[in-house]
Amino acid sequence: MIDVHHIEQISQDCSLTEFVGTTVLDTIGLVIPGIDPSLLEKMNLKKPYKSLGLISSRTGAAGQINAADEAVKSTNTEIVSIELPRDTKGWGGHGCFIVIGGDNVSDVRRAVDIALEYIGKYAGELYISQAGHLEFTFSACADKALHMAFNAPIGKPFGFFCGSPAAIGLVMADLAVKSSPVEVIKYMTPDQGTSHSNEVIVAVTGDADAVKNAVLTARDVGLQLLVSMGSYPESPATPYLQ
Amino acid sequence: MIDVHHIEQISQDCSLTEFVGTTVLDTIGLVIPGIDPSLLEKMNLKKPYKSLGLISSRTGAAGQINAADEAVKSTNTEIVSIELPRDTKGWGGHGCFIVIGGDNVSDVRRAVDIALEYIGKYAGELYISQAGHLEFTFSACADKALHMAFNAPIGKPFGFFCGSPAAIGLVMADLAVKSSPVEVIKYMTPDQGTSHSNEVIVAVTGDADAVKNAVLTARDVGLQLLVSMGSYPESPATPYLQ
Amino acid sequence: MIDVHHIEQISQDCSLTEFVGTTVLDTIGLVIPGIDPSLLEKMNLKKPYKSLGLISSRTGAAGQINAADEAVKSTNTEIVSIELPRDTKGWGGHGCFIVIGGDNVSDVRRAVDIALEYIGKYAGELYISQAGHLEFTFSACADKALHMAFNAPIGKPFGFFCGSPAAIGLVMADLAVKSSPVEVIKYMTPDQGTSHSNEVIVAVTGDADAVKNAVLTARDVGLQLLVSMGSYPESPATPYLQ
Repeated sequence: MIDVHHIEQISQDCSLTEFVGTTVLDTIGLVIPGIDPSLLEKMNLKKPYKSLGLISSRTGAAGQINAADEAVKSTNTEIVSIELPRDTKGWGGHGCFIVIGGDNVSDVRRAVDIALEYIGKYAGELYISQAGHLEFTFSACADKALHMAFNAPIGKPFGFFCGSPAAIGLVMADLAVKSSPVEVIKYMTPDQGTSHSNEVIVAVTGDADAVKNAVLTARDVGLQLLVSMGSYPESPATPYLQ
Repeated sequence: MIDVHHIEQISQDCSLTEFVGTTVLDTIGLVIPGIDPSLLEKMNLKKPYKSLGLISSRTGAAGQINAADEAVKSTNTEIVSIELPRDTKGWGGHGCFIVIGGDNVSDVRRAVDIALEYIGKYAGELYISQAGHLEFTFSACADKALHMAFNAPIGKPFGFFCGSPAAIGLVMADLAVKSSPVEVIKYMTPDQGTSHSNEVIVAVTGDADAVKNAVLTARDVGLQLLVSMGSYPESPATPYLQ
Repeated sequence: MIDVHHIEQISQDCSLTEFVGTTVLDTIGLVIPGIDPSLLEKMNLKKPYKSLGLISSRTGAAGQINAADEAVKSTNTEIVSIELPRDTKGWGGHGCFIVIGGDNVSDVRRAVDIALEYIGKYAGELYISQAGHLEFTFSACADKALHMAFNAPIGKPFGFFCGSPAAIGLVMADLAVKSSPVEVIKYMTPDQGTSHSNEVIVAVTGDADAVKNAVLTARDVGLQLLVSMGSYPESPATPYLQ
């Protein structure tokens, strides 16, 4: 048993079989090979999978959900639930808590591994300044995670833009949807669909070029407005949308 | 298009026509001259104004709502919505997201300008310490923003006091309403009317002298209790109520 | 009246009769000897106690609720309400706002005093790192506060474990309930029962040894997972469960 008076003796290389890995944005990936039946009952899952994969971050949501989307596309697993806590470590947005289910633990572990890898990439389109933050994501072909979270039509291109303080998100979205023939599929505000985050979030679908163009327009506008507030944002990874 | 790998080249003097200005409390003021119809539909506004003015802050709510109140009083505009995200940049309160509507963009821009100016003043009655915060506001003559947010009777004096951690807000309110013949028109707690903020919020109406006196009593009590927690609060502007 | 332009002249030794004391976790304890009738009406209490005791913290909930449990056990008072604001000063959890009622102010003041003392002890099982936090509590004999907040059977042993980011909480809980013959009485997640915190919270009952063992197992697992995220947690007091 751990000596709680000497916590510094715990290794940062976690040896628990449940541990899969960690990545940027205070993200941890875990698996539960066979969830305890009494907990499973309380979780009230639609399908009572016994093997669960968990993706949990303090900051960010769309990039992680897009990453989970890639994970379920290429493994024999399914998204069980997506929850968006009000977090971001003192900033105005969400973290995420995503549960993936599968019939065997190796499928689920593989899915969590893939998701962690994509989160490291997709975090490149998160921009955080002293004043607020912006998040963007794009998928050429949405799958069930993006469908569950944002009504994305499965198999179609998907674009997402989010700005905080909230007004930045709305102006970004207005200019983005004017710039391209896209369809708005989700509109979220502090009182509508979020966990009271200080964001306006808009998701769109359409032709791939139109959706990509809308996301890039939103990013262009959002960065100008965020910088106008007096500090420069940084990204936890490398911007990749172009 | 902006080079996202050289964000520091973006000017802090924003040249977008949507930009109106910024002020304390991570506040940005924006206008949307003619909102995109597909977004307007999703916004589900009671009156579908095409020109929208936006006030959005990371920290504070009552001062901004009072400032918006002044703005609609003196322009041909209307409050469309007031939302209170759970924010304050890591503290226990709200930010705000206020939408103003008008029939032409110059009216709306003027309203946002006026609101920004008043926010710079009203922020003087926000006090933030290491332990918590206090917010106060007073209006001799409430208009539609204060009515929408706090049930303020239109045309009547309005007083507001808010303390965090929540217990400070309740003791402040108790002594304030005992000190003056005022009527309690709003009572908010973490589970009642707030976005789960760590505050008790009370709003009152009555004769101007009684309301002002209640606010000053609440401030006196709140400052003593907040300081008892071991650190001194600062205000982002100059206290102005006396 | 206080000179708000010289706040630093306010004494940190609060002389208001409402002040009881402060303790760790930005906690303040207060009493209201006879609450104003117009406020009492708005508070909508189940029993309209006139003397109220208030426990209010920025960070932590289970330890404070357990402390309030001890307080009502040994005084002639009752728990009136327990609210969990989304707080923790920028971390992913809750603060608390607990109201205790009694027929006379000395009983209530004594209850607040006892609660503050126990909070100083129970805070020892809160662990906060750069990435997240863990909270544990144990009671050999739950009373009305733990019953109100977590469905604890009155008079029975009670154990509580909570981890953030949320996935850590679920893995802790899974291994804890597998390690001991306990019954799960509460399961909370960002969207279920919390104020959108980034936590999974599980509460259990059973024989004292089994409940204690489950809590210690959860702590062992939680500390290993939290440390895997790259920083070591600290506790605001001394860990006491063994």
